[in-house]
Amino acid sequence: MNNGSSERMALSPTEPRHTALPRPGAPVTSAAPKIPTAALPDSGDALADPRYARFVTDLLGVIAYGELSGFERLSSDARFSPSLADRASLGRLAVQEFEHFELVGSFLGQLGVTVEDAMSPFQASIDAFHERTRPGDWYESLMKAYVIDAFSGDFYRSLAGHLDPRTREVIDTIDSGDGAAHLQRRLQEALANDPRLASRLALWGRRLVGEALTQAQRVGIEREYLAGLLFANEADHSEHTTALFSELTRNHSRRMSALGLTA
Amino acid sequence: MNNGSSERMALSPTEPRHTALPRPGAPVTSAAPKIPTAALPDSGDALADPRYARFVTDLLGVIAYGELSGFERLSSDARFSPSLADRASLGRLAVQEFEHFELVGSFLGQLGVTVEDAMSPFQASIDAFHERTRPGDWYESLMKAYVIDAFSGDFYRSLAGHLDPRTREVIDTIDSGDGAAHLQRRLQEALANDPRLASRLALWGRRLVGEALTQAQRVGIEREYLAGLLFANEADHSEHTTALFSELTRNHSRRMSALGLTA
Repeated sequence: MNNGSSERMALSPTEPRHTALPRPGAPVTSAAPKIPTAALPDSGDALADPRYARFVTDLLGVIAYGELSGFERLSSDARFSPSLADRASLGRLAVQEFEHFELVGSFLGQLGVTVEDAMSPFQASIDAFHERTRPGDWYESLMKAYVIDAFSGDFYRSLAGHLDPRTREVIDTIDSGDGAAHLQRRLQEALANDPRLASRLALWGRRLVGEALTQAQRVGIEREYLAGLLFANEADHSEHTTALFSELTRNHSRRMSALGLTA
Repeated sequence: MNNGSSERMALSPTEPRHTALPRPGAPVTSAAPKIPTAALPDSGDALADPRYARFVTDLLGVIAYGELSGFERLSSDARFSPSLADRASLGRLAVQEFEHFELVGSFLGQLGVTVEDAMSPFQASIDAFHERTRPGDWYESLMKAYVIDAFSGDFYRSLAGHLDPRTREVIDTIDSGDGAAHLQRRLQEALANDPRLASRLALWGRRLVGEALTQAQRVGIEREYLAGLLFANEADHSEHTTALFSELTRNHSRRMSALGLTA
C-alpha cells in the first residue's frame, strides 16, 4: 500500500502566519488582563473581530484539509481490506470524513472564505505528515485512523472550549464517535485473530502519536500559534501547553490499552 | 497515478453462473411464448420467483461492486487533482457512488442477501477491468469516470425496462445525472486550456469504450447472460444484443462529440 490513512491531524501551517493570536474579545495589546477562560468567548460577535476570524479560518482550514486528505487516503486504503465488509465499513468512515469536510467548508463559506483558500496554506504540511506516516498495510492504516482521528479530535475539542459558540458547534459536530468505536472493535478483532500483530501495531501506534505530538508541538511552542490562541493572556504559555500535551498523551495511552497494547 | 477510476462497469461474473435466465413471470421451459416486453414485469411478485430473484441479486451485485470500487478509485485519484476545488468535486462524485452502493446494498438486504455475498462473484472480473484501464494521469481518470459511468448507466437503464418495478426504481435512483454534467464541463474546460490533451483523451476514450464493450459483449453473447435476461423468449438473441450495443456505441460517440473529440 502506498497511501497514508484517515486523519484530521497535522497542524502546522507552511508559513508561520500567526504568532500569539488573541482570543475573541481579548485586547490585542500585550498588556491583556488575565481573564478566566470560561467567561471569555460567549459573545456571538467574536467572529466580527478580523484577527479572531482569521484565526478561526486557519483552524478550520487545517481541519478541512485534514478531513479531505483523510477521506482520500482512507478510501484508497479501503481497497486493500481483507474482506468486502471491511471495504464497505472503511468506505463509510471515509465518507463521514468527507461530510465533515463539507460541513466545515460550508461554515467557512458563511464567514466569506472559500474552503480552498482556507486549506491551501496547510496543504504541504499535512501532505508531509501523511508521507511520514504511510501505513505498511491495511492494519496499519486502520491503526492510523484510530490513533490520529482520536488525537485530532481531542486536540480540537480542547480548543473548542476557548472558541466562540458558532465555531465550537461546528467542531463538536465533526466529532466521529461511532467511527472510533468501530475502529476499536475491528482492531481488537484483528489482534485477537493474529497475536503477532500486537508488537507491530504497538510500535506503529507509538510512532504515530510521536509524529502527531511533534507536529502539534512545533506549532504550539515554536510558533506560538497554539499558545497564542489558548493562552494569549496568560503569563506562562508553556505550562498550559505542557498540560494539554500530557492530556493528549494520556488519552492516547488509554486508547492503546483498550486494544491490549502498550503505548 | 496507479489507480483506476470511478465506474459501475464490468459486467462479467467470474464464473458463468447463468445462461438464459428467465424474465420474471416467463416460464422456465424453453417453449416460452413470445410476450411483448412492456407487458411483462409489472407484477410485484416477480422477486418471489427464485430464479429471477437470483438474477436480480447478481445484477445488483455487479452494480454494487462497480459503485464501491468506483468510489475507492475515484476518491484516491482525486488526490492528484490540479486544484483543491477539483479534489473536492471529485470527492463529492466519489461519495455519490458510495451512496449508490449503500442504496443497492440496502435493497439487497430487503431481498435477504448481504451485499458482500452479492458482490463477491464479480470482484475478480471488475478488478481486472480496472487493471486494464488504469488512467495514466488525472485527466484520464476524469475521462474514465465520464465514459464508463455513462456507459454503465445506459446499459443498466436499458435493462431496467425489462425488470420488475422495485428493482427498476433502485436502478433509476442510482443514475448520476449531475455527476456526468460536472465531468463534461470539467473535461471541456481542460481541453480548452490544453489543446494537446485532445488527441490523448480521444485515444483513451476509444480504448475505454472498447474495453467496456468487450466486457459487456463477452457476457452478452458468449455467456448468453444478458441475452438470457433481455431476450430469453425471442428467437434471435444476437439481433437484439447487436442493437443494444449499437445504441451504447452511438451514445458514447455523442458524448465524445460533446467534448469536441472524435469517438
